[in-house]
Amino acid sequence: MAAARPHRPAPLNLRLTLAYDGTRFRGWARQPGLRTVEGVLGDALGIIYDDHGPLHVAGRTDSGVHALGQVVSATVVGGPPPAVAARVLSGVLPEDLAVLAAAEAAPSFHARHSAHARTYRYRVRIVRHRAPLDARRALYDPRRLRRDLLDRWAAAIVGTHDFRAFTPTETQHSDFVRTVESAQWLDRGDELQFEITANRFLRHQVRTLVGSMLKAARGEDDTDPAVLLAGAPRSAAGPTAPPWGLYLVAVRFREPD
Amino acid sequence: MAAARPHRPAPLNLRLTLAYDGTRFRGWARQPGLRTVEGVLGDALGIIYDDHGPLHVAGRTDSGVHALGQVVSATVVGGPPPAVAARVLSGVLPEDLAVLAAAEAAPSFHARHSAHARTYRYRVRIVRHRAPLDARRALYDPRRLRRDLLDRWAAAIVGTHDFRAFTPTETQHSDFVRTVESAQWLDRGDELQFEITANRFLRHQVRTLVGSMLKAARGEDDTDPAVLLAGAPRSAAGPTAPPWGLYLVAVRFREPD
Repeated sequence: MAAARPHRPAPLNLRLTLAYDGTRFRGWARQPGLRTVEGVLGDALGIIYDDHGPLHVAGRTDSGVHALGQVVSATVVGGPPPAVAARVLSGVLPEDLAVLAAAEAAPSFHARHSAHARTYRYRVRIVRHRAPLDARRALYDPRRLRRDLLDRWAAAIVGTHDFRAFTPTETQHSDFVRTVESAQWLDRGDELQFEITANRFLRHQVRTLVGSMLKAARGEDDTDPAVLLAGAPRSAAGPTAPPWGLYLVAVRFREPD
Repeated sequence: MAAARPHRPAPLNLRLTLAYDGTRFRGWARQPGLRTVEGVLGDALGIIYDDHGPLHVAGRTDSGVHALGQVVSATVVGGPPPAVAARVLSGVLPEDLAVLAAAEAAPSFHARHSAHARTYRYRVRIVRHRAPLDARRALYDPRRLRRDLLDRWAAAIVGTHDFRAFTPTETQHSDFVRTVESAQWLDRGDELQFEITANRFLRHQVRTLVGSMLKAARGEDDTDPAVLLAGAPRSAAGPTAPPWGLYLVAVRFREPD
């Protein structure tokens, strides 16, 4: 008589859209003893699924960086059907991390490799008084800025360039060429917002672009952006703006899933 | 020969407009060993002025309640002139508390006694998914609400009523009659916002009004608001909504200062 074999459900490729307040996370990547997005999300997947594979992420975010539309994929086994996974997961996750949507993706879907474009936003408060409710949500910089220089920079950034000036010198990147699809500064009342969409980004790229643009717009550096965008060394660009003004807004994928 | 008398600057009555993120404050009133708005602000005044009198506040806020336009008055001696006091104080205050404006007020000005009307806002997120960046800034309540009942309640609240049903039974209030000048629910995309202006408020009044309205609008309580607004006991009203959805928005004063 054959022993009954326990039912083993088929694995499926799960695609999750996340939002988080980056303030209390030490970035994306799981690290022992530190609270990270990958660590907290992975623990939640471990609770509601029988098993899951490694987590793939569209945009690795640093400590303090926020997300409005991060995308993660992982193979999961068992657990609730995808249609209710967002609700079940959100019940397990802490208040600063939420699953906005969950769906079954094609087996070939990979949140990082399938991502075609990422959009980031950087918020700069430009009025004199601080906004305590935005203290960890926007850069506070009330110094006078030349708006025309910001626009000139944004226009220069669009296109395909060697961005090595905008990433730390000690780097894991070997290719510094990226293609920026759109980049613009928007007036939003008490703040300016920089929005940029590119195929992918170097580490600290958006923050160093913002730091360099703000320095130029304050009249403290008149280096031609075209020079910086042609493979200049890191030392030629401006400072890296702090993480708390930065948001991963959305990710676009190669094919509809 | 007379001894030289040290110069003693004249005291002046200072009026401050404050904003704060209430999350990490244990409310307004100074308490030993706890971080409160009065305590942190008083310490800052102690640093930049030679001396100061007691702090008077237009709207005492509870733990977790935020402020966009709180008003405080205090007599101060020495220190910077009022025109630069906001900037100097903001340099001393932590990131979750800011002075938006500072000015010399008439000697008779008293932030509590001179206040003529206070406006509060309560934010309720009504869409299914949580917003991590608003976790401590709005109530999350995606349950279905009857919008018409909210409007009926708001209309009933306007006017002069005995609000004892909307404040804790153990109370320091002796007069429960308040005059509500305006009250309305506003549609703001993913959220509903309740805005109310009254001459003054009982403790927990806005939060208990909101808790009662949400309960009614979910169809869980069909008590006529007119009954509750005519001196019914606390037990007749609904629960007290949590503090983190509540904002003191603005204060109006009897005479221009």
